[in-house]
Amino acid sequence: MRGHVTDGSSGVSRAPLQEACLFTVCPYLEQKGTMSVVKLEEWRQRIRKELDNAVAFWLKYSHDTTHGGFFTCIGRDGKVYDELKYVWLQGRQVWMYCRLYRTMERFRKPEILEAAKAGGAFLRKFARVSSSSGQWKCAFCLTRDGKALKIQRTIFSECFYIMAMDELSRVTGDKDMQLEAEQMMEQLIYWVRVDSSGLGRPQLPGDVPTNSMAVPMMLLCLVEQLTEGRARDVAQKYRELASWCVQQILQHIQRDGTAILESVSLEGAELPGCQGRLQNPGHALEAGWFLLQVSAEQEDEELRRTAINKFVELPYQDGWDKEHGGLFYFLDVDGHCPTQLEWNMKLWWPHCEALIAFLMAYSQTKKPELLERFSEVYEYTLNHFPDPESGEWFGYLTQEGKVALDFKGGPFKGFFHVPRCLYMCERMLDDLLAKKD
Amino acid sequence: MRGHVTDGSSGVSRAPLQEACLFTVCPYLEQKGTMSVVKLEEWRQRIRKELDNAVAFWLKYSHDTTHGGFFTCIGRDGKVYDELKYVWLQGRQVWMYCRLYRTMERFRKPEILEAAKAGGAFLRKFARVSSSSGQWKCAFCLTRDGKALKIQRTIFSECFYIMAMDELSRVTGDKDMQLEAEQMMEQLIYWVRVDSSGLGRPQLPGDVPTNSMAVPMMLLCLVEQLTEGRARDVAQKYRELASWCVQQILQHIQRDGTAILESVSLEGAELPGCQGRLQNPGHALEAGWFLLQVSAEQEDEELRRTAINKFVELPYQDGWDKEHGGLFYFLDVDGHCPTQLEWNMKLWWPHCEALIAFLMAYSQTKKPELLERFSEVYEYTLNHFPDPESGEWFGYLTQEGKVALDFKGGPFKGFFHVPRCLYMCERMLDDLLAKKD
Repeated sequence: MRGHVTDGSSGVSRAPLQEACLFTVCPYLEQKGTMSVVKLEEWRQRIRKELDNAVAFWLKYSHDTTHGGFFTCIGRDGKVYDELKYVWLQGRQVWMYCRLYRTMERFRKPEILEAAKAGGAFLRKFARVSSSSGQWKCAFCLTRDGKALKIQRTIFSECFYIMAMDELSRVTGDKDMQLEAEQMMEQLIYWVRVDSSGLGRPQLPGDVPTNSMAVPMMLLCLVEQLTEGRARDVAQKYRELASWCVQQILQHIQRDGTAILESVSLEGAELPGCQGRLQNPGHALEAGWFLLQVSAEQEDEELRRTAINKFVELPYQDGWDKEHGGLFYFLDVDGHCPTQLEWNMKLWWPHCEALIAFLMAYSQTKKPELLERFSEVYEYTLNHFPDPESGEWFGYLTQEGKVALDFKGGPFKGFFHVPRCLYMCERMLDDLLAKKD
Repeated sequence: MRGHVTDGSSGVSRAPLQEACLFTVCPYLEQKGTMSVVKLEEWRQRIRKELDNAVAFWLKYSHDTTHGGFFTCIGRDGKVYDELKYVWLQGRQVWMYCRLYRTMERFRKPEILEAAKAGGAFLRKFARVSSSSGQWKCAFCLTRDGKALKIQRTIFSECFYIMAMDELSRVTGDKDMQLEAEQMMEQLIYWVRVDSSGLGRPQLPGDVPTNSMAVPMMLLCLVEQLTEGRARDVAQKYRELASWCVQQILQHIQRDGTAILESVSLEGAELPGCQGRLQNPGHALEAGWFLLQVSAEQEDEELRRTAINKFVELPYQDGWDKEHGGLFYFLDVDGHCPTQLEWNMKLWWPHCEALIAFLMAYSQTKKPELLERFSEVYEYTLNHFPDPESGEWFGYLTQEGKVALDFKGGPFKGFFHVPRCLYMCERMLDDLLAKKD
């Protein structure tokens, strides 16, 4: 293993020197532990190009101008290979278009706004289906013309529906839509914290409720979404929830602080068997940068340290494939073989999360080791996932880094992780370079 | 491609010569298109050894003498890595133990009978849970002490429950148990042919009912199970169902007879999108030998030809990896990339089905090309799946044939496909060699 980030004084004491090196403009001064501004600029340019490329790909190939919404199953060359519309991906694409439109000058284009509005209208018209409990559930998958085909007994379709509606309301100024997002959020909170029976899962004696990391992560992400830049009373409304989410996420630090486990008991204890030992390094890294955002907003230095040491460094140490590079999809903390057939594959999204996490951790601390990690993940990611022939990124590689599934969009890969990562990294690099200027 | 099986006269006209070659005892006479009796004997001995080895492995490691039933999550070296009990695998293990006990002299041992009875008792006590419709559903997964943890909204747990109960009743003579199997069978038939709402799936407008090959295959398998050697009135009772199952399976021959597709419409037409184009070569091969059994019982020469040409030869031609050997798990008939992450992996069970299918097809026709195919699949299978260190077989290889998941038992791999294949192949080789004697 290359030099780990060290806690406390030794790392801090090295910082001034390293920071000086960082902004040296001579490329030949680059050495282990230092990065030049040239490198930051090189990264920014490549990332900017990749983002433009990804946006162009989805604008060109994914819009269904006949029935509305977005095609999500898009082959290597842009051809639609299945017309089903996955609701997670509809919501995420609306959100991403709006976020780009709202916050990045070069994407403030009518065609992006129109696509986002069309996607939002499709979602509002078709995604919500009434469940047997009389509550609104969102479908997981729709036919091309909007007929519900599958409903998951989880909260995630609703989460991406809320993200889409809130972000869309920010660019259109539609207050009804914002209200709708908040109402759906109330429903979600009820399912998670009061009574989950509306989700439709039968209550079984062996099915003990658990704290699955995805749930507090998604809720925390939604709190960020709903409160960003809004009046104090909105932030106030969700303050206790945000704090609960952070605590729920922190419960996943297990084994005396040496591992992040994907599911724990409601009391924060390790669960038995495979479920209890499961690790998902990409997911832990994503939680890491969610926590880093909170720590920055709240100026909580302890949370920042925990986020970096436990949710960024640990998953990288455990999850990085020392032989072939890249992050494993799943691991078992005791080294048993996971039962997920795809456990050793290299997926695009954990690498996206790792890029965001390391660059954010570096931005907040200026510890050069974190930028070295970013560099390592960047090299693997940019050398393996982008498709130089047809644009956008492949999503699924073998352990050895060969493309295993060559489509650009599928049931779980849409216009989301790639552009979100590129967008966030570009902005962080902008800030880092601006400070230098 | 090496010589395909040809229909009709040319194949038949070559048969006498080939058959003469087949039973030449001099190994040096082995050539392309011929197999010596020495080869058959070599295969039988290896297969017999592998079967003994598999039985010994599961007898040694899988019995839960505290709570009853079988551990199904068993690591490479035999160690239990999860105590959950998967009901499909409980039922299959009871069935396999009983079948071996009942039909193979060397397995007629008290410890095998006792284990089967203990597994049956565990299933009867814990597997059935009452569903919201008041009908009996079987759980998919139980805790070690038998508490239901998950229920699938399909018929398969019930299918393996029936197989277990019927086969167990044959060795114990327990008529109540046989009756219970038949009653569960009535429930299944009702779900499949009359009203599936008891399975618990919500009716959604986009979720069009389909003919999924697994359903008629399982029912046909159960008809074979429930009628074998029983009085004429039992066979009579299920005759129409068997015929319906065969017709439902034959509907999966699509694209002018050039492909077997895994799901078709209820009218036997191709479905749109990925679902419609999906191929599962191992499953088609399994259907092939199910149909071959029916064709032999009914002396239906046309069904035999269809079974061999369409369900044995075609899936092999399409599904065999010309570069690395082995059968792909999933394919798309139009050559798109499947969306299943594991599509290009080599799983143990399709190879088990292929061995049975080719040896049965050869046994019934004596066409040497079919034995050549068997030989090819045999070489790949025996060279890649068995674990020379700790016994039993690995289940999951990468496309290139490297072990990707090293456990011997998992949520879907238990004491079933390996021993069923070895058991059936040993018996077929016994018959082939006995005829020579």
